[in-house]
Amino acid sequence: MKYIVILGSTGSIGTNTLDIVAKFPDQFRVAGLTAGSNVDKLEEQIRTFKPEAVALSDPKAAETLRARCRGQAVRILSGVEGLSDIARLPRADLVISAIVGGAGLVPTLAAIQAGKQVALANKEPMVMAGRLMQEEARKRGVKIFPVDSEHSAIFQSMEGHRREDIQRLILTASGGPLWDMPLEEMRHVKPKQALKHPNWKMGAKITIDSATLMNKGLEVVEARWLFDIPASQIGVIVHRESIIHSLVEYRDGSVMAQLGLPDMRTPISYAMQYPERLPLGQPPLDLAAIGKFTFHRPDHERFPCLGLGYESLKLGGTMPATLNAANEVAVAAYLEERIGFLDIAAVIRGTMDAHQRREVATLEDALDADRWAREKAGELVRARTLHSA
Amino acid sequence: MKYIVILGSTGSIGTNTLDIVAKFPDQFRVAGLTAGSNVDKLEEQIRTFKPEAVALSDPKAAETLRARCRGQAVRILSGVEGLSDIARLPRADLVISAIVGGAGLVPTLAAIQAGKQVALANKEPMVMAGRLMQEEARKRGVKIFPVDSEHSAIFQSMEGHRREDIQRLILTASGGPLWDMPLEEMRHVKPKQALKHPNWKMGAKITIDSATLMNKGLEVVEARWLFDIPASQIGVIVHRESIIHSLVEYRDGSVMAQLGLPDMRTPISYAMQYPERLPLGQPPLDLAAIGKFTFHRPDHERFPCLGLGYESLKLGGTMPATLNAANEVAVAAYLEERIGFLDIAAVIRGTMDAHQRREVATLEDALDADRWAREKAGELVRARTLHSA
Repeated sequence: MKYIVILGSTGSIGTNTLDIVAKFPDQFRVAGLTAGSNVDKLEEQIRTFKPEAVALSDPKAAETLRARCRGQAVRILSGVEGLSDIARLPRADLVISAIVGGAGLVPTLAAIQAGKQVALANKEPMVMAGRLMQEEARKRGVKIFPVDSEHSAIFQSMEGHRREDIQRLILTASGGPLWDMPLEEMRHVKPKQALKHPNWKMGAKITIDSATLMNKGLEVVEARWLFDIPASQIGVIVHRESIIHSLVEYRDGSVMAQLGLPDMRTPISYAMQYPERLPLGQPPLDLAAIGKFTFHRPDHERFPCLGLGYESLKLGGTMPATLNAANEVAVAAYLEERIGFLDIAAVIRGTMDAHQRREVATLEDALDADRWAREKAGELVRARTLHSA
Repeated sequence: MKYIVILGSTGSIGTNTLDIVAKFPDQFRVAGLTAGSNVDKLEEQIRTFKPEAVALSDPKAAETLRARCRGQAVRILSGVEGLSDIARLPRADLVISAIVGGAGLVPTLAAIQAGKQVALANKEPMVMAGRLMQEEARKRGVKIFPVDSEHSAIFQSMEGHRREDIQRLILTASGGPLWDMPLEEMRHVKPKQALKHPNWKMGAKITIDSATLMNKGLEVVEARWLFDIPASQIGVIVHRESIIHSLVEYRDGSVMAQLGLPDMRTPISYAMQYPERLPLGQPPLDLAAIGKFTFHRPDHERFPCLGLGYESLKLGGTMPATLNAANEVAVAAYLEERIGFLDIAAVIRGTMDAHQRREVATLEDALDADRWAREKAGELVRARTLHSA
């Protein structure tokens, strides 16, 4: 029996994880859950999965939940400290880190520092403080299992093969909803259209990241730290069908790859029960029905965000945290239709250009850069909003 | 330093193996070599690689070689006993079994019985006497490393993952040189055309097997015994580009695959130095330049030989040995233009229908079936030759 904590249980990864828990009651029990402010869903999850403790980021939402759960045997915490307490629950064996955005950094690091195994769906901890996370995990012998389909594919393609023989990691990218759109049209594309992902059903933020290819830029940064491989050995290929989830090239010319239908339950369950695979009852992969796989080089002119990801790694230190924060602000502004689609990259570029890079020696360094970049990006968004008004 | 023996050193796999030995002189030494009757090439290999002993199947060729190598420190043996003695050389750590056709069975079994690790490029031992080979290897703790690109891909896709979680092996097939040819044209296709393989440079026999898809039928039989997986869990998909060399599907929906440019040195060197990978200096796999992968279901009407492979496994016992022998006779007759292309399957079908299946309890049982089937297939070839004359 494995006791799990889910940081971000009401999101897409969180609910998929709970689906797996429900399907394999002999393997898993829920020790703790956390959410942002979705009281209704968390309350429902408490009734179904009976965790010993939960936390909400929003203190007011936590108050509401306490009132609703009176008489139930569940502790209800709040704020970033509450989230971190859940991540450190003594009974927990594995913490699924599935909070969207930078808010996952502190509780995920808390889980690692408490010696918990971590299944990481949240890119930002590795993007904002990759070296620090990696060092803390190594110091405590903590295994970090990637949950992102690309990183899980790389992890699986490395299992059973010698690290020393690796030549290159190749991340696949779907190209997102705007892959075929001419630059001029991209200038005017509305969120509604940019939110139509061809293969994956995901949250709004990550779908826009997929449309800009920033998602892949962040994944390059994440891969660099998760697998301790320099950026020069990490490539990206556009594969529209999203069946090959990523590949690892070895020095004898062999390339190992993991494939599958787009279903997040595969990488989630692998991270949860590694090295065992759970019988998820999916239909077999029918390659003949799929018919073909296509491959394209990424287009850096229409999708500058991928290059910004590589650039942030090259500059290092606080620069990836800056990239990430500026992107969050810019995407939020785009979703509110305050800036245009192409402005997202421009806001990030402007923020990075203005940033005074420092080393990330402590968590505070990353959080400082994050705060600074949010403010700067906000200014740049406002300038663009005024400009276009 | 690993001492190797190559059974079939003058063929395509044999010379590729020696290329690797030449490239990595600190890793490998040649203990012994064998060939059929190619005295010139074997003599050259003796001078370059200085094996302690060699053997030729053909006693007359061995005489010639002895005369030419007078004064050199090399023992020269002959016949099937000579080949088996080379396979058992005390100094040998690894035996590369690369003889084409059924002639490889006896010396390969001799290598296993002498406790040598075996790199198996020769399908026939597993096809003719798979259960026996598997049992002998298990009894002696001998590891058999597949060299066929498909089986090597499956082997590599199983490394690091739990056997219990395997759902299906998926062998890829190029479809061979006649994949797009209508049935009526296939009736009249000349060997010259059938020998034009789109992706791989191989010997004549195996290229015709690729054109009939019998190659894949034999590989299904081989996979069944190499990996101890029932035929019902082995699938075949036509993948014209031959970049994905094969795949393994697991019960969580994950499919692991091995990819690479068509270069036999990759699977050969992996089998030679497992689990280490040798830096072969190949160009990186450029998926964008390749552009696309296509997948098709095999066409059993135009390519009945694949189904015959499955059928032979289902009938079991001596039936796969019968299939294999009849195929060798039919392909030889086709290459000599004594029968037409579509007659190959008809001759095999006729031989299998006439065969009284028995269990393969000993090597003799397999060899008996082989002899019987060659005779029977020969009769059927002659009947067809007369018929068409």
